[in-house]
Amino acid sequence: MKATTEYRVIDGGVTAPQGFRAAGVHCGLRRSRKDLALLVSDVPASVAGVFTMNKAQAAPILVDRIQLKRGGQCSAIVVNSGNANACTGERGLNDAWTMVHAVASALSIPADHVMVSSTGVIGQYLPMECVLAGIADATLALAVDGAGDAASAIMTTDTLQKEYAMTTTIGGQTVTIGAMAKGSGMIAPNMATMLAFVTTDLAIESSLLAPALKRATERSFNRISVDGDTSTNDMAMVLANGLAGNPPISSAIDTRYDEFCAALEHVMIILAKMIARDGEGATKLIEVVVRGAASEADAAAAARSVANSNLVKTAIHGCDANWGRVLAALGYSGVDFNPDDVEIALNGVPVILRNYEIVLDEELAKAALERDVVIIDITIGSGEHEVRFWTCDLTKEYVHINASYRS
Amino acid sequence: MKATTEYRVIDGGVTAPQGFRAAGVHCGLRRSRKDLALLVSDVPASVAGVFTMNKAQAAPILVDRIQLKRGGQCSAIVVNSGNANACTGERGLNDAWTMVHAVASALSIPADHVMVSSTGVIGQYLPMECVLAGIADATLALAVDGAGDAASAIMTTDTLQKEYAMTTTIGGQTVTIGAMAKGSGMIAPNMATMLAFVTTDLAIESSLLAPALKRATERSFNRISVDGDTSTNDMAMVLANGLAGNPPISSAIDTRYDEFCAALEHVMIILAKMIARDGEGATKLIEVVVRGAASEADAAAAARSVANSNLVKTAIHGCDANWGRVLAALGYSGVDFNPDDVEIALNGVPVILRNYEIVLDEELAKAALERDVVIIDITIGSGEHEVRFWTCDLTKEYVHINASYRS
Repeated sequence: MKATTEYRVIDGGVTAPQGFRAAGVHCGLRRSRKDLALLVSDVPASVAGVFTMNKAQAAPILVDRIQLKRGGQCSAIVVNSGNANACTGERGLNDAWTMVHAVASALSIPADHVMVSSTGVIGQYLPMECVLAGIADATLALAVDGAGDAASAIMTTDTLQKEYAMTTTIGGQTVTIGAMAKGSGMIAPNMATMLAFVTTDLAIESSLLAPALKRATERSFNRISVDGDTSTNDMAMVLANGLAGNPPISSAIDTRYDEFCAALEHVMIILAKMIARDGEGATKLIEVVVRGAASEADAAAAARSVANSNLVKTAIHGCDANWGRVLAALGYSGVDFNPDDVEIALNGVPVILRNYEIVLDEELAKAALERDVVIIDITIGSGEHEVRFWTCDLTKEYVHINASYRS
Repeated sequence: MKATTEYRVIDGGVTAPQGFRAAGVHCGLRRSRKDLALLVSDVPASVAGVFTMNKAQAAPILVDRIQLKRGGQCSAIVVNSGNANACTGERGLNDAWTMVHAVASALSIPADHVMVSSTGVIGQYLPMECVLAGIADATLALAVDGAGDAASAIMTTDTLQKEYAMTTTIGGQTVTIGAMAKGSGMIAPNMATMLAFVTTDLAIESSLLAPALKRATERSFNRISVDGDTSTNDMAMVLANGLAGNPPISSAIDTRYDEFCAALEHVMIILAKMIARDGEGATKLIEVVVRGAASEADAAAAARSVANSNLVKTAIHGCDANWGRVLAALGYSGVDFNPDDVEIALNGVPVILRNYEIVLDEELAKAALERDVVIIDITIGSGEHEVRFWTCDLTKEYVHINASYRS
């Protein structure tokens, strides 16, 4: 990966790249907060998407899968929060198509250039009169500085807007990448389990955008979890409209393709960490590092098991250096390793060395665990593979939020 | 399975069958509660055990696996709570063997007739002077009415003792079965993830006891979860000392073998439900029923996914009929099904019928969910297989308990 110093952080979110406008409005799906976002590229953009692996796929997911097969071009994405339009059968599917066509009419663009996305409560029909009024309002509100409103309108239980933008050079050409995302419950790694939208003015063919997105997703959104529940509505989408003016990237052996992949991965890892940190009820971001694995897949499985353990997450919440729970979670991860080889450090404080040599200094560890970011650093053997995985602590507030989410 | 009316519930726990004595004492592993149990059969008993699948296996598990290979006879089981003797390396292994030999000496029995079991904090060495004093005290305290003390001494965060005993007839012979168990955190289905000890005066060969225990475990302890964390120390063990006087069961085609298997499964399901209901912080027992699956394995995988969902468990805690979360959990279970076919009822109140026909009456559902026991009844298709799985709700108290378990 490129050194992060070559990436210059800027303001502007999804509308930072040239030729993008956005809006976020309130249309009545949520009580008083913004609940409908519209993101538009002034020229048709190459597009790629990845979607939830859940068998129960929400209506917008089904629609977008069809849309993506129709040429790989996109000019607009409409997103509503407050209602997932999931488990809603034929009627839900019709509602999602209605959203597509309403946006196409409002913007005078082909219907197969429109993507749709929803997040919120599962199993309720969309009140379409609200949604259609919202699409009309959002169309009028579209602006080059509309990224913040859009990022706000896609939030559900998120406490913070999740936006990022940067410039970098790809093949000597200055390129801008913008992004927005939302978490923050029903987050588990099997495709993103959240919504994320990345924009860029880079010129790149759709056929290359798809593998770049897939690879970056594997190392970002597929390496976070909040509660281990994989959603029905997850998607990550990237739009590249080419207005930076570079000669289009059209081959995977073009060195600019690798540069773009690295930049995209960088942006998506930043979004992923934002989501994990803002997990429902979270007070801490937990980074699980697994080293010395025989393969990247092993390292990821081991890290995922630790990150999904309710017992590890509650212990970290309580600043308790309960490394036995970490070892137990490794032990049921399905990864082959010798427990004698395991070494664990918590925020730099070693707690156990090989052959169960316990070196834990309780006071030192407790002090280290008081920080907002806790790194659980695990070596499971002498392999060469290493993976980072992000989650958050499990708190009483998580229970509070989810015991009454629909009311 | 036999009708439950053929089973007569009696008092007496693990010492209800003839020829068993037990004791539970305080030896200093826990602040003031009993923490060491001893269970003894007056004559060597056939024995079988099942153990955690966790790669990190506690010292007593390693010892018992060796013991079971030495002839399949058992006269005594020593169990301590407060310390799991897990992740303790060579020293922990020596400590577990020391417990075995101390019990053998105190009771003048062969060392390979002694089993050992531990539960509590992982990664700390046993204070052996306490443990040895406890074994001496427990030996003196052994009594035919000592089952309650023993059941109390194996508890950790359990709020209730878990004991059961019944008589039944097997091949016309009256037989007694007793049992005790403990939960109540780090409970996930991959072998019992808890401790359970079953006693009977039935005469049956060890070689038949093992498959009977394995089959019953699959349908009882492997079908519960509290938090999805599989422990390092789980075990279930059954002792059959033959004092009922029946001609020993020595063949799997003996109809008495099936009768015993059914009785054992009955007892173990009762224990499993006790453990789920007393899960850390739990206020409700949740029974997940999956019907219409293509195989028993599919039904179990679907039920497990729903039972392990933090989002389902918090919704039930809040009496929220959030069936979308149930469907989402089915969707990521890995089981192949058509979401259109799914029907869900909550405590008898239908919420969704085939083709996403939503029939939920919110008020009716809320009232039904107020009960202490919540049955989530799911039909996923038109297969013939059905499974029951038990868990509990996820509460703020669970977080409270586990944020500071070691202090």
